[in-house]
Amino acid sequence: MQENLGERRIIEIIRECLELMPDMYPPFGDDVSAVDIGNGLLAVIKTDMLVASTDVPPQMTLRQAARKAVVMNISDLAAKGVKPLAVLASLGLPRSLGEEQIRQIGLGLNEGAREYGAYVLGGDTNEAPDIIIDCHVLGVCRKETLITRSGAKPGDILATTGTFGKTAAGLRIFLQGLTAPEQIAKPLRESVLMPKARLKEGLAMAETGGVSASIDSSDGLAWSIYELSRASGVGFTIEKLPIAEEAEKFAELHNLDPKELCLYGGEEYELVVAVKPEKWRMVESAVESVGGRLIRIGVATPDRRLLLKWRGEAIPIEPRGWEHFKS
Amino acid sequence: MQENLGERRIIEIIRECLELMPDMYPPFGDDVSAVDIGNGLLAVIKTDMLVASTDVPPQMTLRQAARKAVVMNISDLAAKGVKPLAVLASLGLPRSLGEEQIRQIGLGLNEGAREYGAYVLGGDTNEAPDIIIDCHVLGVCRKETLITRSGAKPGDILATTGTFGKTAAGLRIFLQGLTAPEQIAKPLRESVLMPKARLKEGLAMAETGGVSASIDSSDGLAWSIYELSRASGVGFTIEKLPIAEEAEKFAELHNLDPKELCLYGGEEYELVVAVKPEKWRMVESAVESVGGRLIRIGVATPDRRLLLKWRGEAIPIEPRGWEHFKS
Repeated sequence: MQENLGERRIIEIIRECLELMPDMYPPFGDDVSAVDIGNGLLAVIKTDMLVASTDVPPQMTLRQAARKAVVMNISDLAAKGVKPLAVLASLGLPRSLGEEQIRQIGLGLNEGAREYGAYVLGGDTNEAPDIIIDCHVLGVCRKETLITRSGAKPGDILATTGTFGKTAAGLRIFLQGLTAPEQIAKPLRESVLMPKARLKEGLAMAETGGVSASIDSSDGLAWSIYELSRASGVGFTIEKLPIAEEAEKFAELHNLDPKELCLYGGEEYELVVAVKPEKWRMVESAVESVGGRLIRIGVATPDRRLLLKWRGEAIPIEPRGWEHFKS
Repeated sequence: MQENLGERRIIEIIRECLELMPDMYPPFGDDVSAVDIGNGLLAVIKTDMLVASTDVPPQMTLRQAARKAVVMNISDLAAKGVKPLAVLASLGLPRSLGEEQIRQIGLGLNEGAREYGAYVLGGDTNEAPDIIIDCHVLGVCRKETLITRSGAKPGDILATTGTFGKTAAGLRIFLQGLTAPEQIAKPLRESVLMPKARLKEGLAMAETGGVSASIDSSDGLAWSIYELSRASGVGFTIEKLPIAEEAEKFAELHNLDPKELCLYGGEEYELVVAVKPEKWRMVESAVESVGGRLIRIGVATPDRRLLLKWRGEAIPIEPRGWEHFKS
């Protein structure tokens, strides 16, 4: 029975069973789904489930877990340039939970939504053998501002809204007991416990019309680039790996490969975007005007290979990331 | 630790943690949530989670369970008079599931959506210790057509779109091994395995403007009436219990109380509505014009008691129904 299909094969099987909505936009498998509601508007929806036993390290509080369950959904809307309006939360709860634990979940849900201007409007409560927090986010946007994964063209600039590797290092602290001086360890732990969605950045970029493709990096930088490549039919070369300073130091301390931490981590919520070169300055300054930054890390190429320039060599980037049912 | 809070207390605790959206309509706790999207329109959202170990009898196939997970959400939109457009499905799946089982889930999801004109647009897949099918439905409606739970006035006619008691009897066949002649047993089993949402009826009623309050009956007839009473500030007297013929025969066979089956069952998806008396004929014929029926079962009263006229007596209806964590 233990077929270990892997999350991507499971999604493929289910997709084969579904009659597709005509004129579906964005296509099945993008960060969000949407419905044309007339007047040039899309109602944009997203769902992403958090399961305590597989998604929550023991050091994370229930409040942090509930907050993250909201934030990880908002991150997908951020990648598309869509403002979140409403959150629903379906909860599966073991009978053993007490009032205070339920309250912590409620506080975390509210926190995650209000940080980004959205409200929790309702949800559902069920008995379940594990803590399940399944959030759904709704936003509305003008059809022309929604950024899919599929518009990148050769020559576009590959960029990210931040650095990578902190959560991969943080998880090694939490799950493998690795240590580091507090000055390094603290931001690494924080990156796991209190992830941030790049909503301001995503909304600002969408307004410029200069982003040709965008994805959130929750499955890791390498996998995000692979998905952009697959959807857009281009390749990418990373010329400068956007590794976080703390992750680099942590790698040195423990003799880990910094490339591994940066490329194949996951549970990070930066946006990975392709920017039209002639619009680069406009997009960059739009992000800076809301207090963010846009890091130029590479370029889209006509052939579909994924390469990393590293110490004078061009190394292939593997299309792998964190996958449920396989990890 | 085993505090056994009950679903309603859990919802209360969480609600206390939430900052409410200004001008929230419908209010927190109605069948659906909604966001004003301008142009007189509401984007209406609903989520309801199905957990295999507590919600699915062993005789129900995975395909039926997945279909039901969609239908039970669509039923809530039906009660508000809102057409469903899109479904997302978050799945929690044990590693042990094989390809064919996943396919059955996919087929059931598609079936549930397509039966009511909606499409499954996406979702999420996770590893979980139990099969969890958490669906979210999106619809759009004109603000003035949405029917809340709170508009019933004394003198309004209480009505349902069908009879009650079949699922309560069917669950006794499945879970307690009670038997009945096939002619009776078959519709009882079917009512559990293949529930129907009263979408056509709900949409037709909403267009008339004659329904003052509406709820779906998934927590049982008594609980539905209690909720309408609480939200509208009226009482209800049931003059004629809408018990299904098969449920009545089943009650006779096994010496069960037919009132119990009819009032306190649950997992039924009829609509329970209050109709303005002067609009009764219009609402009734709107429902009949789409092939449904509207059964007049009682009346809304100024004092807030819930009563059942039964063999010459007026019996109090208890505000109870099926509740997670308590049953």
